[in-house]
This record gives sequence, C-alpha cells and structure tokens, in this order.
Amino acid sequence: MSIDDLFTEARYKKIGESMHRMIADLYPICRSITGDGVRETLRMVGERIPLETFEVPTGTQVFDWTVPKEWNIRDAWVKTRRGERVIDFQDSNLHVLNYSVPIRKTVSVDELKARLSTIPERPDWVPYRTSYYKEDWGFCASHNTVEDLTEDEYEVCIDSTLKDGHLTYGELYLRGETTNEILLSTHVCHPSMCNDNLSGVSLATMLAEAMGTVTHRYSYRFLFVPGTIGAITWLARNEAQASRIQHGLVLTGVGDRGPITYKRSRTGCAEIDRAVALVLKASDEAHRVIDFHPYGYDERQFCSPGFNLPVGRFTRTPYGEYPEYHTSADNLDFVTSEALGDSFQKVLRIFQVLEHNRVYTNTNPKCEPQLGKRGLYGEFPEDQLAMLWVLNQSDGEHSLLDIAERSGLEFERIARMADRLLGSELLTAQ
Amino acid sequence: MSIDDLFTEARYKKIGESMHRMIADLYPICRSITGDGVRETLRMVGERIPLETFEVPTGTQVFDWTVPKEWNIRDAWVKTRRGERVIDFQDSNLHVLNYSVPIRKTVSVDELKARLSTIPERPDWVPYRTSYYKEDWGFCASHNTVEDLTEDEYEVCIDSTLKDGHLTYGELYLRGETTNEILLSTHVCHPSMCNDNLSGVSLATMLAEAMGTVTHRYSYRFLFVPGTIGAITWLARNEAQASRIQHGLVLTGVGDRGPITYKRSRTGCAEIDRAVALVLKASDEAHRVIDFHPYGYDERQFCSPGFNLPVGRFTRTPYGEYPEYHTSADNLDFVTSEALGDSFQKVLRIFQVLEHNRVYTNTNPKCEPQLGKRGLYGEFPEDQLAMLWVLNQSDGEHSLLDIAERSGLEFERIARMADRLLGSELLTAQ
Amino acid sequence: MSIDDLFTEARYKKIGESMHRMIADLYPICRSITGDGVRETLRMVGERIPLETFEVPTGTQVFDWTVPKEWNIRDAWVKTRRGERVIDFQDSNLHVLNYSVPIRKTVSVDELKARLSTIPERPDWVPYRTSYYKEDWGFCASHNTVEDLTEDEYEVCIDSTLKDGHLTYGELYLRGETTNEILLSTHVCHPSMCNDNLSGVSLATMLAEAMGTVTHRYSYRFLFVPGTIGAITWLARNEAQASRIQHGLVLTGVGDRGPITYKRSRTGCAEIDRAVALVLKASDEAHRVIDFHPYGYDERQFCSPGFNLPVGRFTRTPYGEYPEYHTSADNLDFVTSEALGDSFQKVLRIFQVLEHNRVYTNTNPKCEPQLGKRGLYGEFPEDQLAMLWVLNQSDGEHSLLDIAERSGLEFERIARMADRLLGSELLTAQ
Repeated sequence: MSIDDLFTEARYKKIGESMHRMIADLYPICRSITGDGVRETLRMVGERIPLETFEVPTGTQVFDWTVPKEWNIRDAWVKTRRGERVIDFQDSNLHVLNYSVPIRKTVSVDELKARLSTIPERPDWVPYRTSYYKEDWGFCASHNTVEDLTEDEYEVCIDSTLKDGHLTYGELYLRGETTNEILLSTHVCHPSMCNDNLSGVSLATMLAEAMGTVTHRYSYRFLFVPGTIGAITWLARNEAQASRIQHGLVLTGVGDRGPITYKRSRTGCAEIDRAVALVLKASDEAHRVIDFHPYGYDERQFCSPGFNLPVGRFTRTPYGEYPEYHTSADNLDFVTSEALGDSFQKVLRIFQVLEHNRVYTNTNPKCEPQLGKRGLYGEFPEDQLAMLWVLNQSDGEHSLLDIAERSGLEFERIARMADRLLGSELLTAQ
Repeated sequence: MSIDDLFTEARYKKIGESMHRMIADLYPICRSITGDGVRETLRMVGERIPLETFEVPTGTQVFDWTVPKEWNIRDAWVKTRRGERVIDFQDSNLHVLNYSVPIRKTVSVDELKARLSTIPERPDWVPYRTSYYKEDWGFCASHNTVEDLTEDEYEVCIDSTLKDGHLTYGELYLRGETTNEILLSTHVCHPSMCNDNLSGVSLATMLAEAMGTVTHRYSYRFLFVPGTIGAITWLARNEAQASRIQHGLVLTGVGDRGPITYKRSRTGCAEIDRAVALVLKASDEAHRVIDFHPYGYDERQFCSPGFNLPVGRFTRTPYGEYPEYHTSADNLDFVTSEALGDSFQKVLRIFQVLEHNRVYTNTNPKCEPQLGKRGLYGEFPEDQLAMLWVLNQSDGEHSLLDIAERSGLEFERIARMADRLLGSELLTAQ
Repeated sequence: MSIDDLFTEARYKKIGESMHRMIADLYPICRSITGDGVRETLRMVGERIPLETFEVPTGTQVFDWTVPKEWNIRDAWVKTRRGERVIDFQDSNLHVLNYSVPIRKTVSVDELKARLSTIPERPDWVPYRTSYYKEDWGFCASHNTVEDLTEDEYEVCIDSTLKDGHLTYGELYLRGETTNEILLSTHVCHPSMCNDNLSGVSLATMLAEAMGTVTHRYSYRFLFVPGTIGAITWLARNEAQASRIQHGLVLTGVGDRGPITYKRSRTGCAEIDRAVALVLKASDEAHRVIDFHPYGYDERQFCSPGFNLPVGRFTRTPYGEYPEYHTSADNLDFVTSEALGDSFQKVLRIFQVLEHNRVYTNTNPKCEPQLGKRGLYGEFPEDQLAMLWVLNQSDGEHSLLDIAERSGLEFERIARMADRLLGSELLTAQ
C-alpha cells in the first residue's frame, strides 16, 4: 500500500477519535522528565506501535548537560490540623511542583503561601510548575483555594523520591527504501495536560502506526523524549547518524481548535519548510508560517548550530498564545478529535509531498514531445498543463516541489502526471 | 541610417495603416499548417521583404514529431435536397474543420449535427476548429444556422486532399555587425482570422522591412512558420545555430484594442525580459508582464528545456481572454491600425534598447572626471545626471540597461549620454 | 573609557549647545574652496581637536583635476554715484559671486543687473553662487535690493585676488586598536551658511573630541576638506591607504529641524548602510533611508567606481528639499542645538554598532549550553532570548548585526549578552 492510499475523510475522523481516546487514557499519569510516569506512558504507546525504550543512567554526560536524578512521586498534600486535605495530589498531579524533593512538616500559612503558585487572573485554574535543575519543593493550586486558607498552620507532605536512576525515552524506526530519514519528535514529560503534549504523543503514535502499513522511500524515526534533556540525550547518543535526517518536525500542541502554525527550521528554506508551506497553502484554510527563533520546544536542540538540522515545528496555536497553556485548563475538553484528525491529515500530506518530491530529467528535452500519439492528453485540462510543466522544468535542476511552487498547480496532480510521464519513458528519475 | 531615426509619430500611423491593409489582403486565404494557403501567404509577404521559403517533405522526422501529409482544399458545403448550400466554404473558410479528409455523402441531420461545431453563447459566430494529427472531417457554423436545420437529410461535401507533399515556411535573415541574433517568430497557419494571427504576420513583415533600412549590431532572423510543427521543424533543421539567438520574441495577437501583455521567457530574467519591461514601463501606458508558463504559442518550443532560448511572447490581449479568439468575430473590425502601429513602435523600441545595451568601462574611474573642461555639462539637468550615472556604474559589470533600471532615467537618455562620454574617451566599450 | 559610557541625555544637550556656539563663531568667515577663510576655519577647529592641516600647491594634478589658483577677498561693493554702498560684502559675504576675479569700474544699471543673482520668489533672501572653474565676477543680492536700483550707473568693486597659492585641508587621525578605519568627511568651503555646512564641521569636531576620550577598536579619520576638489585631492594623495577605510560617512546638513535622511553607499548593502538603518529604526523616530545616486556631496568621489568605498551620507533634510538651501536664510536660526545634539548622538550610536559588531563562534554548538548552571539566566526575559539568539547564530558566519537584524532585538542588548557569553567562555571571537 502506498501513502497515497491513506487519504480518506473517514480515516481522519476515525483517527481523530482514536487520538482523543488515547489522550484520555494517558491523561491521569504523572509524568516528568524522568521516572515511572514516562515509563508507563511509553508502555501504553508501545501497545500500539513497536516502540523501543532506552534507559540512560543518572550522571551520564550529554554534551553540556548531565542526566539528572530520577524523580518519582506517590502522594502529596496540604492538610489542616483536622486532617482535611485542602490541596491533594490525588485530585491532580499538577498540585505539586514537578520534581519537588520529599518533605513532611508543619508550616505557618505564610510559609506555605510562599511555596504556592497560583494564577490570580484565572482563579479556578491550577498552574503547572517545575524545578528540574534546582532542588526545591512547592505546591500549585487554584487561586480560590489559596484565598480560602484561613488557618494559621498546615501540614505539608510530598512523598517523592529523587535519586540515582535513569532517564527513559522511546524510539521507533521504520526502515524505508533508503536510509535517508524523516524525524518526528514529541515530548513526553508533561503531566496531566492534553494539548501540551498528549496531543503530540498521540499524533506521533498514529502517524507511526499509519506509516507502518505502507511502503515508503524515506525511513521514519519517531522520538518520544522528555523535553530538552531528552532531545539532548538522544542527539548525544546518536550524533554520528544525525546527518541522515533529511527533514524533521517537532510535533506539539496539535489538538486545540486554532489554525496550524508552522515554525520554520533554522535555515528557513529547507525542503521541509517549503513542503509544509505548500500543504498549508493548498489546504485553503487559515494558517501561519513563522520564522525560526531559538526559543520554544526541542527544535532548539535540533536547530542548534552544531547540528543545524532541517527540523521545523508543527503546532496549532503556539504556546503562550492561549491562556490554558501550562494550566489545569489544558484538559480533555480543550482538545478535539476534529483538530487532532486534521493535524494527522496535514502531517501525512507533508510526508506525501516529501515522498513524491524528486528531480526528474525530460528524456525528450528538445521541443515538446507529441503527447497525443502516446495517448497522454489528460482527462482534465489541468492534467495536460501539469504534464507540460513537468516536461518543461525537468531539466535535472527542478524538483516536483519547485514545479508545484512555480506553476501554482496542486502537488498531487504534478506528482501523478510525473508518474504518467515516467511510465511513458518521457522522464527518467535521477 | 540608425534605428534611432525610425521613431516618428507619422511613421507609426502610416505603418499601422499599411499593416491593416496587408491583413485585409491576406484575410481571404484558407491557410493551414501545410498547403497552398501558406505558400500564397508567404508569396504575398515576399512582395514586401526578401523572404526565403523552405519546403520540408511529408514524413520528415523533426525531433519527436513527423511532418504530416499536405492538406489542400477547393470547396466544401452542406446542401439541402433542393441543392441549397446552407453551410458554404466559399462564404468563410472557417466553415470546414481544418485538415478535414475528403468526403461526399448524404447524412441524416443527426449525423450532421454530430459533425458540427458551434458556439451556443455567441449564436452568430462561427468557431475555428482543427484536427491536424487525427484524420477526421467536420463543419463549423453559427449556432443560428444549425438551429435552422429542419430537414431530415443533407448532402455534405469536402473537396480536400490530404497526401504526401510538403510543409512550407518562410525565413528572412538580416545580417548585422555581429552574428548574434534576435529572433522574431510568427505563425502563418490560421485561416481567415485577423488578430490570431495576420496581425503577427503583418507586424513581422513591417519590422523586417524597417530593419532592412538601417544598420544594426545584431543580426535579425524572422520566421514565418506554421504553429507548433513549423517551429519544431525549424529548430530541428537549425539546432546547431540556435545558440546564436541572444534574444527573441514570438509575435502574435498584436492588433486588438487591449493593452500589451508580455510573457517572460523561461528563465524569467533574460535581457529580453528586462528590455521589454523597461520599454513598457517607460511607455506609461497600461500593460502586463506575466510569468512564463509552458502553454501558449511557439514559445513552448523555443523555451523547451533542451533549447531554453531567451524568447518571450509579445501580444496585446492574450488568447482566451477575448471571446472573439478563434472565431469568425476575429475579423477586420477586430484589429485597428492604431493598435497595429503601436505594437510596431513598441517592438522597435525593444530592438533599440537591445541594440544600444552594452557594458562600458569608465576610463577615469578614480573620482569623477571634470566634465566642465570637456564641455560635457548637459543641456538638461537630466543629461548631466545620466552622465554621472553612466560614469559611476560603468565598472565593467553594469550594462546600460542595469543603469536605466537602477537610476529610473529613460534608457534613451542613458544611451545618448553614454555615446557622448564615449566620444570624449571617458568610456571604452567592452 | 568605552564608547558605551558616552551615552547620556545631559551630554547630548550640552554638546548640541556647544555645536551651535561653534557654528556662531565660524559663521562670519568668508570661506571658499581655497584661501584664508578655510585656514581660519581650520585654525578654530584646531583649538578643539589636534587637527593637522595640509597645503597643496596650485597646479597640482589630482586625478582628472588640477588644484586651482588660491582666492582671497578683502572687500566688495556696489556704490551709487553719491558713494552709498547698495550692496556690501561687509554685510554678508554671500553678496559676492564666490571666486570672483578682481574688478573695479563703473557700469550701467543694465550691465550690473546682468551680473546680479537674486531669488525672485524669496525677495528678502540673498542667494549663494560660485564660479570656481570659470573666471568670472558678479554679485548676489536680495530681489528687493535689485528692484530698488533706480540709478543709471553704479560703481562696482571686488577687491579679490586669484593667484597661485594653495588648497588647504585638515585631517585628524585617531589611532584605534586596529588600522581599519572609519572615515568621516565634511566640507569646509561654504561661506556664511549654517546648515550647509557649518553644522557638518561642528559635528565632525565634536565627534572627534568625544572619540578622543575613549578607547576604540577602529581608527577614526576625520577630514575637513573643500567640497569636490578637496575630497579628490585627499583621495589622490592617499590612494594607497584608502582601502583601509572599512566604513565612512559624509556629514553635512545635520542641524536643521527635519528628520534624518541616510543615503546608502554605492553597493547599497555595506555594513555602514546596515548599521545606520538599524540605529535609525531603533530610534523609533521618523527617518528616511534612500538609495545611492551619483549626485550630491563628496560621497560622489568616495563612491566613484575606482574607489567604491563603503561611504554613505548622513544628513537631516537633504539639500534641495528646503528653500533655505544655499541662501542667506540658512542662518543661525535655521539650525538648532536640539537637532545638532541629536545628530551627534545618532552618529555616536552608529560608531557603537560598528565598534561592537563582530562575528563570534559558539564554543558549545551541539545543543544549547546549560545557562542555568553558569548563572546566565538574564535579569530580563529579553536578555535570555538575546543570549539564545547569539548562541544559535554564532556559527562563525553571522555577525551581531546580522543577529540583531534577524531577531529584531536591540543591538545593545545583543552586544551586552555576547559580552556576557564571552565572559563565560561560551563564545570565542574570530
């Protein structure tokens, strides 16, 4: 089966629904950059696709960084003297400052408040906070909860461990006809939040599942890594082969109702940048293509100057542009199966462009070949025009993507007509 | 006499009128891609300019194509049983499907109608249809005529021949100071229609006549060829020398009342493309410059990747953008002597730019030369400014066209001042 | 002290006032392209900065030009028969055609009027006229004065000398850490007019004074030269070293109330062009950046093709765009200390960009370095973003100016963060 066979409306709808269910399944797990939450998440992903997991010991040097101690947590709460849990990890794992060291003591309300993060302007929401590289502890709560803290003292408990262990990440490699790779990377370190980034996890999973059912020219590598340290760890362990990556996307925030925003790779004009722009333009839907900047998700690492990989970032609404970002409001209602299915479809279309994009050479370059005698007059006038464009531009310099950009015709038609010309031996592939 | 001496308003008016008369003389002839119609047309062109004609036998292989059988026609009609000609080739040669095989028989009205082309939305007009490469026969008529066909049977006759013969084309070569060529190509295969393409035939003829009266740096080659097969035949027979073509224009549809539309060559930035854009911009009249696309007239062949010649297309309203296109309404009223004269003038100005466009070197490049002591202060401030621009930019890298584009000054003034500086030995030609 | 220490509001205000006082002191002197007026001007400049002056003999060949005879003038007048001075050089040195040969005779009123220049549309103003390279004499006066000439005859006297002597110019060289030079050039040949060009003289003087108090990477060369012939003379005498000039500005017309207009160097994309554009954009004030054209001030010589130096022109309102240009209305009221101080500040900021603009190399290019462990999280989010930009782009190809342009962050912040990263050994300088 070819990638072209994957495109049906029914499929996207079904896949969007599967993605939403998968997110719902993963939602309760307390993830962090290390620990059992990541392991459990990868195990569940592994039920769908043949994921390989890697464990990297604490203390491993990865470029300028060191793999940190492993963090795990069982429970955490703030109790009144009467034993009432006013803040409870069992309600939401966002209530604890992620990577908090263990603590159990009685504190004054003032001391407690100094350890509490809230969002005053969204008094119902719980913020998400972390302290990975500085040992600390704290709680997060809704502003309303904190306003209601009327007692003088509270007992606080964080039943966590922070000790030597491992950093865990997952990887799936789908071998294609060539060893040239398309990289897809998504982060798996965020606890109970859906758009950032269970949407990315579910999208990468479904893409891997779909690509596993078809033949493909490129090899596909899917990474499920803790943010920053996970991407750095992977790059450090795979430095020698990183140059096989011809195109890449960081997948994150792909489930909200906003239009697609694509952030270009560092060079700004890589084939992936042009392929994404073409697909988004052809969709005739609202979208944005923005320039690279060295802030954001793991594109920061892939696009560091020592790697400078052609990796862009595919999101719907970018982080920081929606108030639900990094709060308890990034929940199961915030992501929709329609948006998830649409993200799936669009990335698949990007793969389709990359798979079909080649440079051909017209075997009959002097004047036009006589299409009529070969029965090559297209069914539609656009087909004939597409054939003429491919013949005219296929001088060994222009790819089908170049031709689609210049002609304004749909890439799929261009690719289909190139196939037909190839069949008539009017083209040869390079 | 120099090309600069050709520019007078009186001349354009007179030439526009001559062109219209020439079109009227050529209008009745039934032309096709082969046959006596083309021969008669070239004979009449040859009365004005020393045209050389070439006969290429049927069956000659020209790249991917084969010179077809020669087609000639004496008469054609559709008659009622009473002998009344309801469709008559003698009224208009558009009435027969061009390249129809001979036929004479009685047909039912339904069979006849299946062989008839009309334009329902323009019920008075007769369409122009061809079937060069598939043997067929048919008629074209006004929709009103067809609506009036009330009898059960009609006798049809096409008194044509389709047999081995020749393809005929005309060529005129005006040798210049160098063997670098400017190519002008126009198609001569259309029967009684004026804009497409007797206007092109008359323009090429008048340009050749005018250029024959002046000295010129470039050699000029004028081609009068049947569309597609004629251009392909010429290229096949002149492949080795085609690289002498430095600039070229396909001339067609130059007599209608619309503004000029220039279609760029395949590279999009050839000197001809820039020269035309400059002339059109300087005219301060409405015009369009559009990108190359591999559809249209014989630029398709000249711009095929194996030749990739710097040949653009000069028209007024492009085909397909006016309803009269390829119908009986493209008649003597549709083209005007004003438009024809204006097209003549503009192509001549393009020649003028190409003739004068050179790269010079300032012989006194360090600081400005003292113009005053050489009496070189111009009559007008713009003259002095033009001299300063030419001196400043003439570092062996920039042509006069570059300088005109950058400075925004008129090309003619730039060229005149370059001449003056050359006379003062402040420039040398490369 | 570093150039960064020169930026205080109080300083600009004080310097603007000093510049206006300096203009007032220089205003009365009758300058020309040669003679004692230039000498006296340079002597007064030399009271502030250690200017070196050069005397070049009449007749010296400088490229295509020859140093002219030296002109000096003591007095000039037009008298009635009753001895009344109706036009008097003692009132304004603009009254005499600059470079007039000596004359003393009685002339008819008609002959006198033929020798008189006025500005009819500004009847109170006296125009400024010269005749350097054609021996001539004449007067300039207000149109009102000329309208009042009711007598038949007048006595005219120009007590000037035009004889072999010298052309005088001044130069100051401030040696920096490298011999790469920044050139500042201003013309000193205009008599009693303030914006053109005592404003330029005072700006160059104050800049030289300021740069003399700080350490700097570039060497700075300040030229105080007669227009055209002075710049040509300097270039002829310093041809071999001219290539040391890495960046340059012609300073003129910097005291009027209009916004800054920067005219790009001949290449249009020199580092100076980009540095000025960045400073003007960052100022968030109205300004214009215009393309090079080979007309104007001494950029004509520096940007002649044989030198092609990266020298732009820094002015407020360009000549010809204000009616006071080259008239008696270009007086002490036309220039303001605010505008002068602002011009000073902006050129200093340009120097600052050039001084700090370097290409660095990230010593830790594979993935991001861990800023936190080095205490490099900036005080402001923009500081951190600036550090990430510098790290990401410092691959040995991009300068800080490139990074400022691409990131849209302020150059000063970029430069400051680059210094901080350099201090942490995360960058090395090339």
